[in-house]
Amino acid sequence: MAQINDNFLKLKAGYLFPEIARRVNGFCDANPNAQVIKLGIGDVTEPLPEAIREAMHQAVDEMGDRGSFRGYGPEQGYDFLRNAIADNDFASRGCEVAADEIFVSDGSKCDSGNILDIFGTNNTVAVQDPVYPVYVDTNVMAGRTGEADAEGRYEGLTYLPCTAENDFTPALPEKPVDLIYLCYPNNPTGATATKETLQTWVDYAKENGSIIFFDAAYQAFIQDSSIPRSIYECEGARDVAIEFRSFSKNAGFTGTRCAFTVVPKSLMGKTASGETTAIHPLWNRRHCTKFNGVSYIVQRGAEASYSDAGKRQIADLVSFYMENAKLLREGLTTAGIDVFGGTNAPYIWLRTPQGMTSWDFFDELLNKAHLVGTPGSGFGASGEGYFRLSAFNSRANVEEAVKRVQNLVK
Amino acid sequence: MAQINDNFLKLKAGYLFPEIARRVNGFCDANPNAQVIKLGIGDVTEPLPEAIREAMHQAVDEMGDRGSFRGYGPEQGYDFLRNAIADNDFASRGCEVAADEIFVSDGSKCDSGNILDIFGTNNTVAVQDPVYPVYVDTNVMAGRTGEADAEGRYEGLTYLPCTAENDFTPALPEKPVDLIYLCYPNNPTGATATKETLQTWVDYAKENGSIIFFDAAYQAFIQDSSIPRSIYECEGARDVAIEFRSFSKNAGFTGTRCAFTVVPKSLMGKTASGETTAIHPLWNRRHCTKFNGVSYIVQRGAEASYSDAGKRQIADLVSFYMENAKLLREGLTTAGIDVFGGTNAPYIWLRTPQGMTSWDFFDELLNKAHLVGTPGSGFGASGEGYFRLSAFNSRANVEEAVKRVQNLVK
Repeated sequence: MAQINDNFLKLKAGYLFPEIARRVNGFCDANPNAQVIKLGIGDVTEPLPEAIREAMHQAVDEMGDRGSFRGYGPEQGYDFLRNAIADNDFASRGCEVAADEIFVSDGSKCDSGNILDIFGTNNTVAVQDPVYPVYVDTNVMAGRTGEADAEGRYEGLTYLPCTAENDFTPALPEKPVDLIYLCYPNNPTGATATKETLQTWVDYAKENGSIIFFDAAYQAFIQDSSIPRSIYECEGARDVAIEFRSFSKNAGFTGTRCAFTVVPKSLMGKTASGETTAIHPLWNRRHCTKFNGVSYIVQRGAEASYSDAGKRQIADLVSFYMENAKLLREGLTTAGIDVFGGTNAPYIWLRTPQGMTSWDFFDELLNKAHLVGTPGSGFGASGEGYFRLSAFNSRANVEEAVKRVQNLVK
Repeated sequence: MAQINDNFLKLKAGYLFPEIARRVNGFCDANPNAQVIKLGIGDVTEPLPEAIREAMHQAVDEMGDRGSFRGYGPEQGYDFLRNAIADNDFASRGCEVAADEIFVSDGSKCDSGNILDIFGTNNTVAVQDPVYPVYVDTNVMAGRTGEADAEGRYEGLTYLPCTAENDFTPALPEKPVDLIYLCYPNNPTGATATKETLQTWVDYAKENGSIIFFDAAYQAFIQDSSIPRSIYECEGARDVAIEFRSFSKNAGFTGTRCAFTVVPKSLMGKTASGETTAIHPLWNRRHCTKFNGVSYIVQRGAEASYSDAGKRQIADLVSFYMENAKLLREGLTTAGIDVFGGTNAPYIWLRTPQGMTSWDFFDELLNKAHLVGTPGSGFGASGEGYFRLSAFNSRANVEEAVKRVQNLVK
């Protein structure tokens, strides 16, 4: 009889966000008149910028004419988009990233899971804790872990605690690890890494033959120009790092879907027999065999995010959300809550009041203030006692949310 | 040091279509004035239907207004699309498929590769031969095979030869297999399966506890109403089959990207310890963890393919391509070539003249007639001595292609 992948049975309850949705739906069903404000899932709320919509309208029209119709495109993405990315996101920051090292995809979530296909199951893996759950769950599915313990930590994974005590900056692993996930600006803590900090990771990876999976999905929210937006701003990073980027949060693409992954040609791994081999052709083979490219219409929209008008409109969006973050930071601080993040990231990470557990605070906030956030423990054991609020919402909702929290804790 | 997935090293040369592209590009560079006609890759050529473009324009506009903006949608697809699929593709054919058994995705290629994530590596696998290369390559990547032999057959896979001798209808496997790929109408042979034939596969799967991966990407091209369009037209199929469908070929979505996979709730597998367990929640977990849904704009386009106008426009597209198929069939038959398929499928499968190998005929056709097709051997060892031509092209190109073949072989 067909046998399932038993590793799936090790996965805990549900993926975090469906569990939140379940509780919120339950509350809303029981309280149909409650004005629930959602600052939970990191989903954008403001309209797709005009320059992007214009480009997509034009692309839809092109699809209606035999001469300009587009069928299968290159699986890796159209040159017009790969070139725009290389120029604007990398060359402009002094990073050496060639257009053909950029693989356009429909999401960083997909890429950060799918990248594991090209690596052996016996690699050791380190993740920051708290962490974006997809990194952990996809490694569980791929068989790189044992069972989870009572706190939700999987056997075999190396967890790097990030708490207020270490300023959310984890120490290097004590034992060498092969694959390391780093997310900066961090989801969920909102912490950033200085160039010096990132360089120590790059140096560590070089010394240990590790590969860093660098998730820069939130780079657009960095306000401090001294903070690196790409790991390739560090010396030697091309030899040790894969970088994930997305149009989701900066350009408002969470429902439109476009992202990309950078795999430098100088990045190497080893085979079972110990030979050194390039990673780029492996990812290219995986990408071409199991993916068929992003919608042409969507790629034209993503390209428009790099036009002069597109850049201005995106800068306005980012400013808008960062003003929200400031209001949340300041409003919660006034209420006596310990607040982290929110200065170079769209996430506010707060310590739950009165030592409440993360889920208790979630339920209290939902039931008493009709606010939805994300329990820190949902991101890992070291997130217990913390809570994430997202700056993605309307100004009015953010102002109202601040008032409700202030009333709740006063 | 980070270790790669060594199974990738077992993969032969390149994926078929990039290899074709390489040869064609080489020819075009050397012969810049040649009027090359491409009947190789199965890519549509005619404009995206108007009803679909209208729906996409409207969806782009919705994205420009805060009130109608859409961020993250349900990973499995919006209800409006899942319901339209359930009603139009299944209920209308008497098939019992619920909307929540339908998982909307960005491509059948992706789904047919990704589905393997939820199955154990020690399942035995059967494929038709010749076969869509993705089925084989993704199993190689997942470690379900040994090395390939001189003819390209991977150790450990069960190949089911489909040749003119058995009317391209393979016999049941001699030894029990766990996972079986069936593609009808078939890519590349253009063969179809009668309801009786399909029922023998369903019965076989029930008896042996196998799961059938049924690829129905070309169902819209079936002209004979007695031929099943879905495996769920067979009794008991809900207990043994996953079905893959796509908007690529019928609605012209190869560059727009939308597809779906049906996983019935009654489909079961077993765990390593021998317990029976449902497949639906596993695929749901995989889909939610490693995928973020299809672009809202694209889903609205796919939905419009089921409107009255959309259905008419798609029927016109299908008729157009099938008239091309008829011209190819008749023109090649007149030229004395043995032709198969092309009556309920957009592919013409022909026997290479004078016993040429498939790649020799490819080179001859390219060099002497400036035509591109797909060598049968690229689809598997039993495809050697055959060749695929696609009906996806303009009428003028198809007519010109027929003339060129007739001149070449006369």
